[in-house]
Amino acid sequence: MQLDFKKTEGLIPAIAQDAETGKILMLAYINEESWKLTLETGIAHYWSRSRSKLWKKGESSGNLQMIKEILVDCDNDTVIFKVEQIGKAACHVGYESCFYRRLEKDGTETIVDKKIFNPDEVYKK
Amino acid sequence: MQLDFKKTEGLIPAIAQDAETGKILMLAYINEESWKLTLETGIAHYWSRSRSKLWKKGESSGNLQMIKEILVDCDNDTVIFKVEQIGKAACHVGYESCFYRRLEKDGTETIVDKKIFNPDEVYKK
Repeated sequence: MQLDFKKTEGLIPAIAQDAETGKILMLAYINEESWKLTLETGIAHYWSRSRSKLWKKGESSGNLQMIKEILVDCDNDTVIFKVEQIGKAACHVGYESCFYRRLEKDGTETIVDKKIFNPDEVYKK
Repeated sequence: MQLDFKKTEGLIPAIAQDAETGKILMLAYINEESWKLTLETGIAHYWSRSRSKLWKKGESSGNLQMIKEILVDCDNDTVIFKVEQIGKAACHVGYESCFYRRLEKDGTETIVDKKIFNPDEVYKK
């Protein structure tokens, strides 16, 4: 199976989903190198757009994502990583999921997720 | 809440997830216009990259996506549409989900989803 890395400047969105609960944890991007490393190691690797570098998710926090299953979409340009999320939190803000806010009909937001860690303690400078 | 439409040429990925089961149905892109229409109508609207036009999902097949909940990620640049999928199929190939293939360790793929409709019958020319 060949992914189509041509469409968006070499990057494809990868959705990390909790393999047990089905909860969507985050979306990040992969390039060919991170895709290859993910397959080889069984640990999710992405491409950080903000830092323009290969990103082994959890390299600072310890919250690695162990790959349990990979699903590919009909166009070969999006993947799902079903993962075991080490540390039970994917978001750098400390929540289980990056999608911790619900948009309400009146335009306000509600926090709907639980905070697992304090980022000030985890990402020490 | 303001989404960050500046990063990727005005487009943000939107993950459609079945509101009942948690199954990920598809990923598509939204621009500001489709985002506005989605909020106004309660029906998922995307931007079709292949056709370069506003795309009311299900406009041909009848398989609309009724918005039940919207979640926004920590960077304001990805959203989840939790939807009721009319017709029980999101994929233009006829499967419930666009992610109907699992990548096996030996590089082969296995179909892991059920086919709901025959696209030749639904998309008549």
